[in-house]
Amino acid sequence: MGKKCIGIDVGGTSVKVGLFETTGDLLLKWEVPTRKEEGGKYIIGDVAASILKTLEEKQIPMEEVVGAGLGVPGPVMPDGSVEVCVNLGWHNVNPGKELSELLGGLPVKSGNDANVAALGEMWQGGGKGFDDIVMVTLGTGVGGGVIIGQKIIAGKHGLAGEIGHIHIRDEETESCNCGGVGCVEQISSATGIAREARRKMAASDAPSAMREFGDDITAKDVLDAAKAGDALALETMEVVGHYLGLALAQISMVVDPEVFVLGGGVSKAGQFLIDTIYKHYDKYTPISKNKSGIVLATLGNDAGIYGAARQILD
Amino acid sequence: MGKKCIGIDVGGTSVKVGLFETTGDLLLKWEVPTRKEEGGKYIIGDVAASILKTLEEKQIPMEEVVGAGLGVPGPVMPDGSVEVCVNLGWHNVNPGKELSELLGGLPVKSGNDANVAALGEMWQGGGKGFDDIVMVTLGTGVGGGVIIGQKIIAGKHGLAGEIGHIHIRDEETESCNCGGVGCVEQISSATGIAREARRKMAASDAPSAMREFGDDITAKDVLDAAKAGDALALETMEVVGHYLGLALAQISMVVDPEVFVLGGGVSKAGQFLIDTIYKHYDKYTPISKNKSGIVLATLGNDAGIYGAARQILD
Repeated sequence: MGKKCIGIDVGGTSVKVGLFETTGDLLLKWEVPTRKEEGGKYIIGDVAASILKTLEEKQIPMEEVVGAGLGVPGPVMPDGSVEVCVNLGWHNVNPGKELSELLGGLPVKSGNDANVAALGEMWQGGGKGFDDIVMVTLGTGVGGGVIIGQKIIAGKHGLAGEIGHIHIRDEETESCNCGGVGCVEQISSATGIAREARRKMAASDAPSAMREFGDDITAKDVLDAAKAGDALALETMEVVGHYLGLALAQISMVVDPEVFVLGGGVSKAGQFLIDTIYKHYDKYTPISKNKSGIVLATLGNDAGIYGAARQILD
Repeated sequence: MGKKCIGIDVGGTSVKVGLFETTGDLLLKWEVPTRKEEGGKYIIGDVAASILKTLEEKQIPMEEVVGAGLGVPGPVMPDGSVEVCVNLGWHNVNPGKELSELLGGLPVKSGNDANVAALGEMWQGGGKGFDDIVMVTLGTGVGGGVIIGQKIIAGKHGLAGEIGHIHIRDEETESCNCGGVGCVEQISSATGIAREARRKMAASDAPSAMREFGDDITAKDVLDAAKAGDALALETMEVVGHYLGLALAQISMVVDPEVFVLGGGVSKAGQFLIDTIYKHYDKYTPISKNKSGIVLATLGNDAGIYGAARQILD
């Protein structure tokens, strides 16, 4: 048997745990409920107990495990400490240190969950085979992660990869959750796409398949209609593609990755979404004929455990 | 005597060479004319001969020199090869390899000159003491360099740090040298600032100290007038500060450096320029109270030799 590593993705409802070969094969995954009471003080203990129990059941000696990685839904300092993690109730804790102690001194590394997911996609997902990727996760919000030389760029203040909060649209009037106005997230998240569709419908009398959904329209409804050729849905996606393509072009002028990896629910629109973004990305990067590619994430919700585990392999 | 390293900044008119202690002290610097004839085939030979002659004169044995670094005005591949360097006439050469052979196998590393200058400022300039900086050079054009973990991020297609070609202004109608429209360089280079001033003067009848310069106005004239309180010059610099501040905010959401280092002729405006940019930068980064600082470059034209030399010390 080869060496193993463990990836732990700490979420607000459950903690996902994956046991991997260090070569990247997922052997086993399971979930542990997230006990948030009393400042989340039981979370790491529950995870440690669950890992020890599973290793024993599977008769895997601890000596075969080279280390574990944690993905945390908030900023993580270089020493692994977490000042505040609202979703879990954590304040001034070092979850990696705590886990290491509970696992007999096993090496543990921690990172922000969005960055860790990007690392996972680089390791075994859509970005496999590339050293430098930028992941853009188009979900309820827009997250991101920057991986250069197979390593996470976390940023001095934990802001690296906050692609969703690049200011991109001067004409926006509504506020973003971050306190800004005109962020990428406001246009290209699932929420943002639905809002753009509502705006398009309100601003026009044109018939559209989107109208049957009314104000309850979702990003999937918009994308399905656009793929079917609905003119107003296509107009909506042109706006989304324009701003996302521009954002990717801006990112290219900063870190110039080999590929952009699109993840999150919106990315299920697949090649249609890539094509919609790419033409605008291409327009805004006239400086070079050689451009970063755009590919789809492949690991879905498992990206976090993959990336968490990958952290320990440097 | 401690160990030495050599930094070589290859320019279109002259090659600057610096001999350093590996601790960062500049011992000696000199220049070699750039012979561009016959595809620039004599450049590296001239540099090698000059280095050997200088070391002999100064009685520094080659064993004391740990290596040399080259800064090249164009894209450099990871293996040090240069496909094309218009300013020097180079096509498909590996200047570092050639120099190494001429210097008895001395280790040589090559990088793009703008990236190398950023590394120099990190080592011994305005970014000294920081591991993660983004340099923005406001000269005739706008260049840049991204240094993370004390290393240059060059990008997969050599585009990382091309801060000047971030698309930032949708309303722009004139074209940028890169083929794009609305780049950072078009507004905040020395050329761009002068153009903004001409636009402001043309669009208004307001009296202004800038008018005496007419169409020959320079960025320095604009900055001097703004510092003296001239309303139209201040309006001009608000536009420049707005777009530069926005660009820095966007960069922060990608790599989140410890500091931005401003260099180039325009940065001689000093704290006034920093203040003009910072308020806009601050506005566009509401996501965090902890922000990257903005400091001034200090090495001037020597940044290139410092950074070239620093490349070899990894």
